[in-house]
Amino acid sequence: MNIDLLVTDCALLPVPGREPLIECGYVAVGAGRILETGSMDACPAAAAAIIDGQGQLAMPGLVNGHCHAPMVLFRGLADDLDLATWLHDHIFPAEARRVDAEMVYWCARLAAAEMLLSGTTTVADGYFFEDEVARACVETGLRCVAAQGVLDFPAPGVGDPARNIEAAARFIERWQGRDPLITPAIFTHAPYTCGRRTLRRAKELARTCGVPLFVHVAETRNEREQIAEPLAPSPIGHLAALDLLDRDTVCVHCVWADDRDLDLLAAHDAAVVTCPQSNAKLASGRAPLTAMLDRGLRVALGTDSAASNNSLDLFREMDFAAKLHKVRPSDPTAVPARQLLRLATWGGAAALGLESGHGTLVPGAPADLILIDRNQPRLQPWHGPDLLVYSGPAACVRSVIVNGRLIVHERRLLTIDLRETCAQVRRLALE
Amino acid sequence: MNIDLLVTDCALLPVPGREPLIECGYVAVGAGRILETGSMDACPAAAAAIIDGQGQLAMPGLVNGHCHAPMVLFRGLADDLDLATWLHDHIFPAEARRVDAEMVYWCARLAAAEMLLSGTTTVADGYFFEDEVARACVETGLRCVAAQGVLDFPAPGVGDPARNIEAAARFIERWQGRDPLITPAIFTHAPYTCGRRTLRRAKELARTCGVPLFVHVAETRNEREQIAEPLAPSPIGHLAALDLLDRDTVCVHCVWADDRDLDLLAAHDAAVVTCPQSNAKLASGRAPLTAMLDRGLRVALGTDSAASNNSLDLFREMDFAAKLHKVRPSDPTAVPARQLLRLATWGGAAALGLESGHGTLVPGAPADLILIDRNQPRLQPWHGPDLLVYSGPAACVRSVIVNGRLIVHERRLLTIDLRETCAQVRRLALE
Repeated sequence: MNIDLLVTDCALLPVPGREPLIECGYVAVGAGRILETGSMDACPAAAAAIIDGQGQLAMPGLVNGHCHAPMVLFRGLADDLDLATWLHDHIFPAEARRVDAEMVYWCARLAAAEMLLSGTTTVADGYFFEDEVARACVETGLRCVAAQGVLDFPAPGVGDPARNIEAAARFIERWQGRDPLITPAIFTHAPYTCGRRTLRRAKELARTCGVPLFVHVAETRNEREQIAEPLAPSPIGHLAALDLLDRDTVCVHCVWADDRDLDLLAAHDAAVVTCPQSNAKLASGRAPLTAMLDRGLRVALGTDSAASNNSLDLFREMDFAAKLHKVRPSDPTAVPARQLLRLATWGGAAALGLESGHGTLVPGAPADLILIDRNQPRLQPWHGPDLLVYSGPAACVRSVIVNGRLIVHERRLLTIDLRETCAQVRRLALE
Repeated sequence: MNIDLLVTDCALLPVPGREPLIECGYVAVGAGRILETGSMDACPAAAAAIIDGQGQLAMPGLVNGHCHAPMVLFRGLADDLDLATWLHDHIFPAEARRVDAEMVYWCARLAAAEMLLSGTTTVADGYFFEDEVARACVETGLRCVAAQGVLDFPAPGVGDPARNIEAAARFIERWQGRDPLITPAIFTHAPYTCGRRTLRRAKELARTCGVPLFVHVAETRNEREQIAEPLAPSPIGHLAALDLLDRDTVCVHCVWADDRDLDLLAAHDAAVVTCPQSNAKLASGRAPLTAMLDRGLRVALGTDSAASNNSLDLFREMDFAAKLHKVRPSDPTAVPARQLLRLATWGGAAALGLESGHGTLVPGAPADLILIDRNQPRLQPWHGPDLLVYSGPAACVRSVIVNGRLIVHERRLLTIDLRETCAQVRRLALE
């Protein structure tokens, strides 16, 4: 067994949301995979590199199911507004003016840094100039399901909407099988910005290439009315009628999904990403998460963009989701901590169609793991993994390993010059 | 002008929630007070000590309106349960077994450290053995309105309920005028744990001594039924009927306050503390915060204890409050960021009856301020102070000054041995 990296003397949470926690153990990593984990009695003696995990907890890195990484540029640009005003009066004009390959590249680097430093090791991203997001993630060391945006309007990098599917096809060609960190995909923005033909063609392309299709759907109450038609009484019904739903389609938001919509999603085994903070901040509403989980839907948790959140901290997203779903209708047992730990790791990975084991420390899984400093005041004393949801431990993330490579160590990002990235983003923000 | 401490070259937010932000300024501190602030052109040349604030934002430290600091021992002990089960099956038994002077002292030290490191400089605390909380705060350097608990049951340190008011009186005697960091107060636990006579006597004592009275009230739906009687149809009505409401009474929670209750609070100018995360996690409900603010009530924001939150990070509380009150009924403009910045600083201080200016950087105010590293990824780029609410900046707090004294510098606590404190709390947790 060739061990590239060995983490010793740490507590271990191999499958978040499930017991047991190993109090003092090790993780052996080789060729980008988890080779084995166990208690320290069985720890291998030799490895190419060793990290002393004393006082730390090793767990799988978090999986952020939905992001528009480059939108960190618009973080805090326009708060306390509804989605329509926010989008049409602030974000769309800013995007029209500001989005180019350079902006996407630098802002995606900043977003990748922010996610890694707060314990996220995989993100599903959807934007324009998505090549630049993929490039930024490869350089920074973040795993990314990178989805090229498709719109029936002139979009950044795709001036002619008639070529939107072609642009997505070229993007997939360029990235399929190219880098272990990148899974290319397609992101049809929404049923109200993509016509029937575009949605159908995008899904055909996704099926042909074997890649996931992402789509914002049922985000706001208004959308329901905009999409309504005799044969498709709801946005999700509309997607079903177009034969868009299958297990490689990821429906983002689904706030205004009723029982019939959830039945449709379940019947087609389509996946869902819920973004509770973004939906709350924009007052779009609260997704029926309990009903989704009761139906056995594959669900991931997403931050959405930093412009509507305004952070990319998935630990905070877990905490918010738990509390939001308990408070009304009043049920303190709803969406318990262990369920959110699952959604934020292997449950989310399954929703995104990633390989089995992704989001766990089970041997054979991709070696994406984080080390959390359990000696920080907010994690004292340690009564169990629920603290990871309720105590806001993002700042306690000390080390991050992605694909077997050490990316963050002692809270420092090792892969890129963060100071330069921040300076570039500040420059772009002033333009 | 004798300047003890001068912070230079920082951005300044002198009165959170109000413009303007000074882009490059200074803060001069002397004798525990803010002496002056201004732009760098007018910066004094000499000071006993200088902190280079480059890349940082200086703002008043946060005011946590409600806490039971020693309960950090029970952080994560029992999650995802309703208030009655949580309290009667887990917390009360744990308290009966575990609470003594030693536990209160060490756990309050840990809580004080956690609050200071996340930017809180004043806390209103209520517990038993409150002398130990006050002592821990003085040693750690946190400002504290320390309220001795009063119950009509045998309580930690007060075995005979007949002596509960006497114990509170002795506590106030010991602390009034003793240390600039400590304001003694009384904490009558709740209308369902304190009888009429006790509530009346506690308020008489508070009035005689000129100290605030805290009380949990209208936290759960059940409480309404428990307290109901012909003359007082609600818990808040009950307090009013007992003549407990005045501007030195702080009503904590008020989740189940109806319009009549809010009118009563307003008529008596009684203050409110809202604890949205605790109320959500225990599924107690959501306080009518918008209605409270519309009536001009003095409102503070509190974390409640780490056992029902599970962190003491007031930045996170702001963010949660903003989103919770936007999502339902759907209003993205409700409780905007600037309003929360006010509640978490000078608005909260006013609710607690602290001196005018407390929670600002206005000359003459207590020198309680924090420096936030604006170069951290999650605060990039800087579009304005709303980011302080929506981007979770607790981990970006680099320096903390309380009463003119540097308590946290470069994210390190200078006052106590944090490692020893954590070890003591871990030992207590295992007992």
